[in-house]
Amino acid sequence: MKKVGIIGFGYWGPNLVRNFVGNKNFQVTKVADSRQERLDLLKKQYPSVTPVLDTADILNDPDIDAVAIATPVFTHYELAKKALLNGKHVLLEKPMTATSSEAEELISLAEQKGLVLMVDHTFLYTGSVQKIKAMIGENVIGKVKYLDSTRINLGLFQPDINVLWDLAPHDISILSYILEEKPYSLNATGVSHTRNGLENIAYLTVNFESGFIAHFNCSWTSPVKVRLMLIGGDKKMIVFNDLEPTEKIKVYDTGYDVKTDEEKRKLLVDYRTGDIFIPKVPGTEALALMVEDFAQAVLVNRKPIADYKSGLYVIKILEASAQSLKNNGAEVIIK
Amino acid sequence: MKKVGIIGFGYWGPNLVRNFVGNKNFQVTKVADSRQERLDLLKKQYPSVTPVLDTADILNDPDIDAVAIATPVFTHYELAKKALLNGKHVLLEKPMTATSSEAEELISLAEQKGLVLMVDHTFLYTGSVQKIKAMIGENVIGKVKYLDSTRINLGLFQPDINVLWDLAPHDISILSYILEEKPYSLNATGVSHTRNGLENIAYLTVNFESGFIAHFNCSWTSPVKVRLMLIGGDKKMIVFNDLEPTEKIKVYDTGYDVKTDEEKRKLLVDYRTGDIFIPKVPGTEALALMVEDFAQAVLVNRKPIADYKSGLYVIKILEASAQSLKNNGAEVIIK
Amino acid sequence: MKKVGIIGFGYWGPNLVRNFVGNKNFQVTKVADSRQERLDLLKKQYPSVTPVLDTADILNDPDIDAVAIATPVFTHYELAKKALLNGKHVLLEKPMTATSSEAEELISLAEQKGLVLMVDHTFLYTGSVQKIKAMIGENVIGKVKYLDSTRINLGLFQPDINVLWDLAPHDISILSYILEEKPYSLNATGVSHTRNGLENIAYLTVNFESGFIAHFNCSWTSPVKVRLMLIGGDKKMIVFNDLEPTEKIKVYDTGYDVKTDEEKRKLLVDYRTGDIFIPKVPGTEALALMVEDFAQAVLVNRKPIADYKSGLYVIKILEASAQSLKNNGAEVIIK
Amino acid sequence: MKKVGIIGFGYWGPNLVRNFVGNKNFQVTKVADSRQERLDLLKKQYPSVTPVLDTADILNDPDIDAVAIATPVFTHYELAKKALLNGKHVLLEKPMTATSSEAEELISLAEQKGLVLMVDHTFLYTGSVQKIKAMIGENVIGKVKYLDSTRINLGLFQPDINVLWDLAPHDISILSYILEEKPYSLNATGVSHTRNGLENIAYLTVNFESGFIAHFNCSWTSPVKVRLMLIGGDKKMIVFNDLEPTEKIKVYDTGYDVKTDEEKRKLLVDYRTGDIFIPKVPGTEALALMVEDFAQAVLVNRKPIADYKSGLYVIKILEASAQSLKNNGAEVIIK
Repeated sequence: MKKVGIIGFGYWGPNLVRNFVGNKNFQVTKVADSRQERLDLLKKQYPSVTPVLDTADILNDPDIDAVAIATPVFTHYELAKKALLNGKHVLLEKPMTATSSEAEELISLAEQKGLVLMVDHTFLYTGSVQKIKAMIGENVIGKVKYLDSTRINLGLFQPDINVLWDLAPHDISILSYILEEKPYSLNATGVSHTRNGLENIAYLTVNFESGFIAHFNCSWTSPVKVRLMLIGGDKKMIVFNDLEPTEKIKVYDTGYDVKTDEEKRKLLVDYRTGDIFIPKVPGTEALALMVEDFAQAVLVNRKPIADYKSGLYVIKILEASAQSLKNNGAEVIIK
Repeated sequence: MKKVGIIGFGYWGPNLVRNFVGNKNFQVTKVADSRQERLDLLKKQYPSVTPVLDTADILNDPDIDAVAIATPVFTHYELAKKALLNGKHVLLEKPMTATSSEAEELISLAEQKGLVLMVDHTFLYTGSVQKIKAMIGENVIGKVKYLDSTRINLGLFQPDINVLWDLAPHDISILSYILEEKPYSLNATGVSHTRNGLENIAYLTVNFESGFIAHFNCSWTSPVKVRLMLIGGDKKMIVFNDLEPTEKIKVYDTGYDVKTDEEKRKLLVDYRTGDIFIPKVPGTEALALMVEDFAQAVLVNRKPIADYKSGLYVIKILEASAQSLKNNGAEVIIK
Repeated sequence: MKKVGIIGFGYWGPNLVRNFVGNKNFQVTKVADSRQERLDLLKKQYPSVTPVLDTADILNDPDIDAVAIATPVFTHYELAKKALLNGKHVLLEKPMTATSSEAEELISLAEQKGLVLMVDHTFLYTGSVQKIKAMIGENVIGKVKYLDSTRINLGLFQPDINVLWDLAPHDISILSYILEEKPYSLNATGVSHTRNGLENIAYLTVNFESGFIAHFNCSWTSPVKVRLMLIGGDKKMIVFNDLEPTEKIKVYDTGYDVKTDEEKRKLLVDYRTGDIFIPKVPGTEALALMVEDFAQAVLVNRKPIADYKSGLYVIKILEASAQSLKNNGAEVIIK
Repeated sequence: MKKVGIIGFGYWGPNLVRNFVGNKNFQVTKVADSRQERLDLLKKQYPSVTPVLDTADILNDPDIDAVAIATPVFTHYELAKKALLNGKHVLLEKPMTATSSEAEELISLAEQKGLVLMVDHTFLYTGSVQKIKAMIGENVIGKVKYLDSTRINLGLFQPDINVLWDLAPHDISILSYILEEKPYSLNATGVSHTRNGLENIAYLTVNFESGFIAHFNCSWTSPVKVRLMLIGGDKKMIVFNDLEPTEKIKVYDTGYDVKTDEEKRKLLVDYRTGDIFIPKVPGTEALALMVEDFAQAVLVNRKPIADYKSGLYVIKILEASAQSLKNNGAEVIIK
């Protein structure tokens, strides 16, 4: 059993604590938060865990094998770096870091030290995304042509990051998981309705050399909550509606075939609409599976699903999106 | 009663013929189409209308007061110009013309001749859009902050125009109708999955100096049909779902107030969610109302709802979107 | 080509005329209605059909081979009897007759004369019901255990029949089509909110000796329109939502197995929930298929889907339901 | 602060314990269950509560002021009687008792002793039902004419009660809460697909002398979960869909007016469809409000919402429904 310390007991931290406590391979020994009232709450709920105000009590504790970090993104790099330098495996909340150079430095450090560095892209562990990944792997939907995601609601305006950094990591991590091709470039547009200039509505198009296209529509200012992703293949298409209680994934036997000898003024494309299939998807808690994946990475060095590559992928896209937003939506090549 | 000739009896022409025949202020005397089988069908359905193969039989007919044109967009300019030169009022199918300079020339010609020039933006005449316009006019939803439109389905790939020119005119005409502010610039991204290079998926962001933002998501390659528009005001927000049989418009008493003294790391915005209201919207056929609006413009010179200004507005945006697509999504200032 | 006369050009008659005119095996020669304004409308729409005020002009016309009757139900028996006596094939609107003895007399007469007698249970010809029938025939859903139908809306209060006679025939005809077992008894309850005592809300339970149960919920006074039928088998279950534009039928791989050695206070039943399948269902117009079925019955004596047996089945149930309603819901054995 | 003992820590008991522990007017001192493993779980979750195997340890404890009973229904009477005889206030899970005579005896005993006797009809405390009650009280929907409830899903077959006793109490308690008129009679039909003869599908019609009608459709064997209630007034109608996450209640400005001089063969009824209104409903946990209502009843003798009258009302209807089921659906007069 590995000893773990968790830094941050705010919005997401309690979910991490609950799932690490429930995992048979981990023992949560310490939890850090700078707010005494949060530590009081922790003490009440988990009498056996030691609450600490100072992150150093975790980062410098030689008994602790692994650290999970659920703090604001701008603090991730410093905390993770110290943890890795002290020989601890690290799980970072999404998004991984504030810049791709920070992420790359952490990755290089982890590789050097032979430590696990993982990002909590929880969505990858849902039954829905696992099912989508499997269907693509088994060539059920054919060559994937596009991904279109809408993630909008009346949400908390984050004070330090814009709506893309807040909401898009979920969907970008799915993109990175299901598509092998690397993105080529992107365009981002948006608007800020607050004085701080952080976009509360933003649109992101990611371009690929193969002709694949991905689009992300994110907003904190929609009267209705939408969590909808379309994934189109040349054999079938998937509609993933995460708000459906039981029928989250619909597979449409729908396609279009582009004819080979196209002539102007003639119909270019054949259509096909057929049956629809709604696979049963297991309802296991994704976060518990993520923690177990971290455990296996730590214990037997198994490559985790949410590895640092997908973490870096997300940061590179977010970083480029910021540049495109700054340049009024101009195309930014993704390095 | 005014005599009208209709050019084009393909996909949309029959709807025009049916509604002009049903209008008490018009008499349809001739319908032109270059395909004999379409004229045979016309003859069977409307024995009293004269079918003609040559558009000149309409454009040069001194008895005809007005011409309705439902042909491919690249032919609009020539046909409309001849009609105006021959002193006939003109109704053009959307989009108005292939270029804004064509549209401007037609407008100038119509004004010179004192003739009506109108574009069939049918959607403006629906009960839903009329209701939205009225609610904005009565300040029900407050200052409008954004419009977000999704219009996707598995649709006919047009052989001569991309998906924006095909699908976006509906939503852009609504934008032009409900918002007085002129658009400042736009960005368009997209992809073509056919050899002809015409985008079958495209995304358009239109920027305004006030901070208003509009976004249009158009696709011919979605397994599901979506017709969804969000219009957010600072008092209320509207969800317009055109696929709902009876509950097309929902008004959410939902808002967010940005606080004046924003400080970093503090909550910046107050939320409010309240009741929802679904107004009853009359189900009158929009096309019949559009034809009657054309009739009143011709008869008593009443300014029509779908006047040439909204026609030109749409063309300017489409034209700029083509330029942005060509420049990999770079911002294009709208003149 | 057979000559057909159609009696009744009110609500449903025009649909019959349109489909008989469109059928290549029939020629509509005469249409009767007692209202001159309906005949004027007919004349305008179908110049080649002879309008007649008196049904005798059809029933006594030796040139007419078949008669379709779309008049109020209490007139069906007299009209159909005359038609059969004059050697004409007969298609009756649903419900077939006002009493089962009338229906039986017509059936006996038709058999004697070797004439086709058919009831327009249009729903049986929809792609949806054909698909359900096929799935049951191929044992996809296993042994059928129940049917539960809700057919409610804010509807026209009929002046001569109650809501069961108006709405339930659709669903009862489906029941008769998909289940071989004869019904044993029924109970009906309901209420009339008008002075004429005709129920505007009514509930019907039909009992079968095997343990199969069917229930019908009918109302003219619902604020929402519902057309929902559940059909439960011991292997799978079907949800048929006729208001869904494209996804009308959902097949749930869901079941429950009753254990053989049940003991009190123990869990008696095993559950299973699995994938869901939405078959593509052809969208052909049901009424056109019904008319063609009538044509084949007339031309080559093919047994029609909506034969008089299902017509009589529906009447027997409606008749028994009236008796149960009169007896405050008491069970009525169906003869 | 009153001391409370809770009997039963199976399916519902934990919810009661959680809410009593969270209520500032109660102190949970003991919880009883006959299964040691349930008590072990309790001990882990609530170290300060004393677990007991024998209900007598609660019922005979002179320090305990009130008892909450969440055991199988056939044990309610004995447990509640002992508690009342020992001077304790009693909260019973629904349904109140196995027979109406048991309920009446408990009521009489409680009145004699001046003790609170309440039934946990949790639904009455939901924001939705409170809103419906208020709208009826303020005459928003006019004179109520019908209630139609569907409560179906693939559910646990109860081993000791049929589906009506399991599912209908929720909806019957709502009926008792919103309508002052007493029910006159009822009819119940249904079927059992298990050997124990307990209906897994059942239909219940409750008749009122005024012409009001209520219908309940309950099933454990539906592939889809439905929680839908229609309440029709002569001014407006309510659709209550408890599965909607936020839009549970829709108020339709829809009605029908029966004309006074009805004549046969003429349209009898005028229709009206208008706007729809979706009131915001508070999301407070109903169970917490129920526990507080019990607290106020105990502390200051305030009449609770879920008083024993509604408990008895529900039992009388369930009891009569059992009789009607036994008599093949025949009408049973409710005493």
